[in-house]
Amino acid sequence: MQTDQAQKPYNAINLSKKFELFSEQWLPKVVAELNDYQFKIARIEGDFVWHDHPETDEAFIVLEGELRIDFRNGAVHLKASEMFIVPKGVEHKPFAEKEVKLMLIEPRGVLNTGHEGGERTAQNDVWI
Amino acid sequence: MQTDQAQKPYNAINLSKKFELFSEQWLPKVVAELNDYQFKIARIEGDFVWHDHPETDEAFIVLEGELRIDFRNGAVHLKASEMFIVPKGVEHKPFAEKEVKLMLIEPRGVLNTGHEGGERTAQNDVWI
Repeated sequence: MQTDQAQKPYNAINLSKKFELFSEQWLPKVVAELNDYQFKIARIEGDFVWHDHPETDEAFIVLEGELRIDFRNGAVHLKASEMFIVPKGVEHKPFAEKEVKLMLIEPRGVLNTGHEGGERTAQNDVWI
Repeated sequence: MQTDQAQKPYNAINLSKKFELFSEQWLPKVVAELNDYQFKIARIEGDFVWHDHPETDEAFIVLEGELRIDFRNGAVHLKASEMFIVPKGVEHKPFAEKEVKLMLIEPRGVLNTGHEGGERTAQNDVWI
């Protein structure tokens, strides 16, 4: 006889396991939503395009590896467990000499290339 | 003669170093803002009070240690590099057998005890 109160399964989001599910670079995958914000993970390596997000700040959290974010007048270097908020409207260009695993946090609907478009623009809102 | 373009210092937010700056538990410290959202870090150990946040989801990311979040009909267990979004309006109670270091992400102005108040309510918007 089942007398226990019904238990709902609550599942942790394990970022390492999520990364095992894909190998492609520069294609952010959504792992969670917080109100109208999305948590995305991505593998990136090499150079990206200059772009900005005129309507929103963008959070970068490095989970593994090293990331450099170039600005027109400087750069920030991020290692694992380091983060940086790129302010809205500020042009930036991520770069990684070797593959880096990172998490991005930004409002739903933000494109990886901002309004630059082009071949580096990733499909948006892809969950993993 | 200085001919270089002026370089602005862009500083990474190093979460480990931020944790070295305080030892008190249950008092979240803001380390960054993303639009009107705040990234807070906290050390917690033991049992908290039941509460909810009727107006917002709340993100928990465990950086070190293990966290359990109890719900009225279940629980989720989080280890380092695992995260969970507590949906708005859902009663929850964080618990850690040993000290856990975590990051919280939620809109500016959210109190740790929701609307429960009481002695466990931490001062809000304290930066580190």
